Amino acid sequence: MKATITDVAKKAGVSMKTVSRVLNNEPNVAEKTRAHVKAIAAELRYTPNLAARGLATSKSYLIALIYDNPSINYISHIQRGAIDACREAGYHLVVEPLYLEKVKSRAEKADAMRMVLEKLPVDGVILTPPLCDSQGVLQTLSELRIKCVRVAPRNRGQQPFVGMDDDTAAYQMTQYLLEQGHKRIGFIKGHVGHAATDMRYDGYCRAIESGGLSVSEQLVFQGDFSFESGVVQAKKLLELPVSERPTAIFASNDDMAAAVISVASQMGLDVPADLSVCGFDDTPLARNLSPALTTVRQPIYKMGFKAAQQLIDPDGDQQKIGQILDFEIMLRDTVSNLKN
Amino acid sequence: MKATITDVAKKAGVSMKTVSRVLNNEPNVAEKTRAHVKAIAAELRYTPNLAARGLATSKSYLIALIYDNPSINYISHIQRGAIDACREAGYHLVVEPLYLEKVKSRAEKADAMRMVLEKLPVDGVILTPPLCDSQGVLQTLSELRIKCVRVAPRNRGQQPFVGMDDDTAAYQMTQYLLEQGHKRIGFIKGHVGHAATDMRYDGYCRAIESGGLSVSEQLVFQGDFSFESGVVQAKKLLELPVSERPTAIFASNDDMAAAVISVASQMGLDVPADLSVCGFDDTPLARNLSPALTTVRQPIYKMGFKAAQQLIDPDGDQQKIGQILDFEIMLRDTVSNLKN
Repeated sequence: MKATITDVAKKAGVSMKTVSRVLNNEPNVAEKTRAHVKAIAAELRYTPNLAARGLATSKSYLIALIYDNPSINYISHIQRGAIDACREAGYHLVVEPLYLEKVKSRAEKADAMRMVLEKLPVDGVILTPPLCDSQGVLQTLSELRIKCVRVAPRNRGQQPFVGMDDDTAAYQMTQYLLEQGHKRIGFIKGHVGHAATDMRYDGYCRAIESGGLSVSEQLVFQGDFSFESGVVQAKKLLELPVSERPTAIFASNDDMAAAVISVASQMGLDVPADLSVCGFDDTPLARNLSPALTTVRQPIYKMGFKAAQQLIDPDGDQQKIGQILDFEIMLRDTVSNLKN
Repeated sequence: MKATITDVAKKAGVSMKTVSRVLNNEPNVAEKTRAHVKAIAAELRYTPNLAARGLATSKSYLIALIYDNPSINYISHIQRGAIDACREAGYHLVVEPLYLEKVKSRAEKADAMRMVLEKLPVDGVILTPPLCDSQGVLQTLSELRIKCVRVAPRNRGQQPFVGMDDDTAAYQMTQYLLEQGHKRIGFIKGHVGHAATDMRYDGYCRAIESGGLSVSEQLVFQGDFSFESGVVQAKKLLELPVSERPTAIFASNDDMAAAVISVASQMGLDVPADLSVCGFDDTPLARNLSPALTTVRQPIYKMGFKAAQQLIDPDGDQQKIGQILDFEIMLRDTVSNLKN
């Protein structure tokens, strides 16, 4: 028979609330009482459940991850980071995808989220892009008085967020291609309206121009982060006459970069001898492609971890509004040096 | 101001417990009262939160997904299915990975799970392989009086499970290769000790033998479901003298099949002209490989959905102990017909 909080309170001769305060490290308990209660709890092998802990703190010890991003890889890593931060602090992560069509209005998104949260007592919410940029969603959370931390939002504003510098990452990757002697560098953009899409494109443009070249409209196409869109846009780029065809293509994510490699191989072009390719994200796919993909490693796991940590301990060492985390350029086998 | 359960009870002239019973579709409430309470709740736009619902039912409306399987793809689809079943029934999914080293004993696994569950009130647990085959874990859940449904367990036994027929799937895939004229069919096994590893290998052996051939030890190698292990074993198979080399390789999952394609391409072998390849799982990787991979589609999403549904409504139309779900053979571009 498992010991309950009542057993501990009775044996220690204190109230249930005092037991709960001690075991949640809350203030207002004398040190001697604290030690006594802890000893009794240990003796009875008592560990408080969520309800008992909630008695003293009005906390639920639940954090919700709410998202409408369809990328399994992205969400899995955010989730894993958030779960690790929760585990450390005795919290649990509830995962709540919203199935939203692209055409959904601000109000419809907010309503879908409200439906989920109204029945679920959470201490905070993690929002991923593009949901984290919906004013309706943020407004609703504020009405429900639920704290939130946004992951990689477009508009950083005055609410807590974690993010990375997509612009600088794309700048550095493009600069690397330039250093390898590439002058015609194609670019496939991500989904219209996503913050990352614009920031990555801006970084690409900055690098091209700082290299003394100019951005050619002929070499920039609009994808939507899907493999399928990568296939369509890669064909357009690779069907250009050889003298105009890019020697390198920078795709705004790994799925589209995989599509470029696939189209190139179907056209009999060798990567990287005939065409250099790079991506963005460093999904597991990147390592498993053949050849392995040169790409930008986003701190996705770490963004999830830091977001949960900030919700759990808003007064910890992350009391700043925003945290910008580091990225890495992963040099693998899909870029050739034209200078050799 | 949001209406509370007290508001509804007061206005309807009944107890809070009655309101809770009505809104949770519990028995022991007169039909007239039921209709009246529902009307008042609708008028006040009341939706019960978890705590209020728990008052009458002692349910937490939380289901935990507990796993130690490292495959992001597998877990994501189980999770998505489980969340969809939860959402339909007003439940929420808490995701709890256990980070277990392979050497962990039965008792250590059970303790890791106990640590998570002792503080978390859940109405049921979904266990994935290989955790679902740990007697220590099942014993602990029984001690904690927590219901569980196992996904694809090795030992089906007398506790609830959902699964698929891996053996028949591998049999059919191997038979398909035989029908295409392949006689030297290599096989790369999965992780030692996983149920799926043995069932898939058994299906392969049955098909080879029913085709009047015999299983050659030279063509069967032990992988561990990782891309890296696929690379090592594919090299062994493809470095055989041409007359002994397999014309087709059946890898026990898609990651290892991707490795076979990668090794073949590095050795200058064309897939499928020089080598046919097939996998198992139908991860997103399978469609995005070039050429697209012929593989077995597991009902992973559906297993998650059915597992959660069975926990939520154990007396529903799934009252049987076990449910075996259908698979599909996905014919794509990595198998050639030697008879043409």
